[in-house]
Amino acid sequence: MRRPPLIDGLQYDRWSEKIFRQLREGGVDALHVTIAYHETFRELAANIAAWNHWFERYPDLIFQGFSADDVERAQESGRTAIFFGAQNPSIIEDEIGLVPVLHRLGLRFMQLSYNNQSLLATGCYEAEDAGLTRMGREVIAEMNRVGMVVDVSHSAERSTLEAIEHSTRPIAITHANPASWHPARRNKSERVLRALAESGGVLGFSAYPHHLKNGSACSLDEFCAMIAHTAELMGVERLALGTDLCQDQPDSVVEWMRSGRWTKRIDYGEGSAAAPGFPEMPAWFRDNRDFGNIAAGLRKVGMVEGEVAAILGGNWLRFFASSFGPASAL
Amino acid sequence: MRRPPLIDGLQYDRWSEKIFRQLREGGVDALHVTIAYHETFRELAANIAAWNHWFERYPDLIFQGFSADDVERAQESGRTAIFFGAQNPSIIEDEIGLVPVLHRLGLRFMQLSYNNQSLLATGCYEAEDAGLTRMGREVIAEMNRVGMVVDVSHSAERSTLEAIEHSTRPIAITHANPASWHPARRNKSERVLRALAESGGVLGFSAYPHHLKNGSACSLDEFCAMIAHTAELMGVERLALGTDLCQDQPDSVVEWMRSGRWTKRIDYGEGSAAAPGFPEMPAWFRDNRDFGNIAAGLRKVGMVEGEVAAILGGNWLRFFASSFGPASAL
Repeated sequence: MRRPPLIDGLQYDRWSEKIFRQLREGGVDALHVTIAYHETFRELAANIAAWNHWFERYPDLIFQGFSADDVERAQESGRTAIFFGAQNPSIIEDEIGLVPVLHRLGLRFMQLSYNNQSLLATGCYEAEDAGLTRMGREVIAEMNRVGMVVDVSHSAERSTLEAIEHSTRPIAITHANPASWHPARRNKSERVLRALAESGGVLGFSAYPHHLKNGSACSLDEFCAMIAHTAELMGVERLALGTDLCQDQPDSVVEWMRSGRWTKRIDYGEGSAAAPGFPEMPAWFRDNRDFGNIAAGLRKVGMVEGEVAAILGGNWLRFFASSFGPASAL
Repeated sequence: MRRPPLIDGLQYDRWSEKIFRQLREGGVDALHVTIAYHETFRELAANIAAWNHWFERYPDLIFQGFSADDVERAQESGRTAIFFGAQNPSIIEDEIGLVPVLHRLGLRFMQLSYNNQSLLATGCYEAEDAGLTRMGREVIAEMNRVGMVVDVSHSAERSTLEAIEHSTRPIAITHANPASWHPARRNKSERVLRALAESGGVLGFSAYPHHLKNGSACSLDEFCAMIAHTAELMGVERLALGTDLCQDQPDSVVEWMRSGRWTKRIDYGEGSAAAPGFPEMPAWFRDNRDFGNIAAGLRKVGMVEGEVAAILGGNWLRFFASSFGPASAL
């Protein structure tokens, strides 16, 4: 019997042979990677070209994933399947017709907004959230049609609830934690988490310090107890990981993530003027070789093997299988 | 037994339900369509979005073709497989990495130049032809690797010969005729045609009046006699059709084709100030229902059924099968 899949629901590392080898050492079968924050369509194409270059250069370590079957292919060939996603709909600019074009290129996740208001929805840092826009409703329907996952990790509360409601297919919060555990703007209310679970969506737990109680000092026990608690609210089958690992990135990258080209000042986002850079990851999750720590922590808080396997990849795999193809194939 | 495939190697019509229905009436199984003349990458994406819209709207008439197998699928389902191509490398701008991105989107043909000098090669209207550029050699190698056909229909003589020589896979002249029959700048020398044939490439005969002896008045007999004569030079297995049909296009489109954004004046190309628009197609090829005329004409000049079938589609099908996949699969 094949071992259960190990899948991470979001990373944005400074990609290198070292990291690709760590993915293999850590036994990561599939990974959703962010390929755009504030990029235009043209800039995204350049990012895809860079990924193609890595695929060509490291064919024994990684390959591009298009369907859930590629997770099995990854396991069989001892490689990591890389699935593309974007944290911002800037990549479709003002053209709904780019949704199927990007799906053809393998884009499998797209956030409706990144912190700010987008053409589609409101971001979690805006003061006012008017919910989905006219274009937002149209684009969600198109994403549903082709099989591109609606991700609302950085969206505001009302927009998130409306996206869950409006989408005809389950959506994802690829990387966030419950706000009841740590009240960050990026973390999600119980109302959102309950609606997500009821609609069949998936929550990927984040190990990014700004989303953790006690930040970088958060203990593995605290993190895993929070997961166990969330399982009571949402059900284990709705839970997964989205570590938000940003390994080896220089601080200029977190500046780009936060400030893009939309402000002339520096927006510190979850950071502050005193701590403007990337925070230090918790000791129990430094890189892709550390998923075993999380598995051990989940066992320690009382989860049985099947639950641990579901959270570490089984739930994402099932979600991938029902999400990445056209609606007509369902 | 399945009937032989009917494949046209180039059209740029003003697409409409009427034309898609004529493709079915005419029994056209596959078609290489031009989706860009002077477009940038971003503009090309909008053109693909327009095609996606047609595919969604007329699924019983057309679908996008990606591999030679799709020709069989077209025959089985009574539809026309549409294969994308560009007449100009403007679509990759200055970035070789866009070649695999566009291949993923289904681009199966790309001309190295369109009348003018490009970043890759010289066009047939330039006074000087310095042959392939540095980037041209790199891009041909990349096209060879992924399975995108090098098309030199609008390229100049030396660039064309160097492309045939440099390409590790057979290339195509999708739409042109022998210059010895009608000495247009767009038609090809015997030297080029011989080199193309020896390398395993394919020539698609054009029915566009500026490429025909006597223009719009060219008779079917003259056209088919020219094909029979070219068969003696190149071998029947190297010959196909590329009608260059531009059905229902307004004259503003031929202006875009010729002048793009590269001149402030009007460039008349193959036309003239006295006849600046699209020429009238010959009486024996008005639209996609007229391929039977060409088949009859080829029989009349003495071709046997197998030869007619090869020219009307069999040769393109074999070429598609060996050209559209990655070199590593050969």
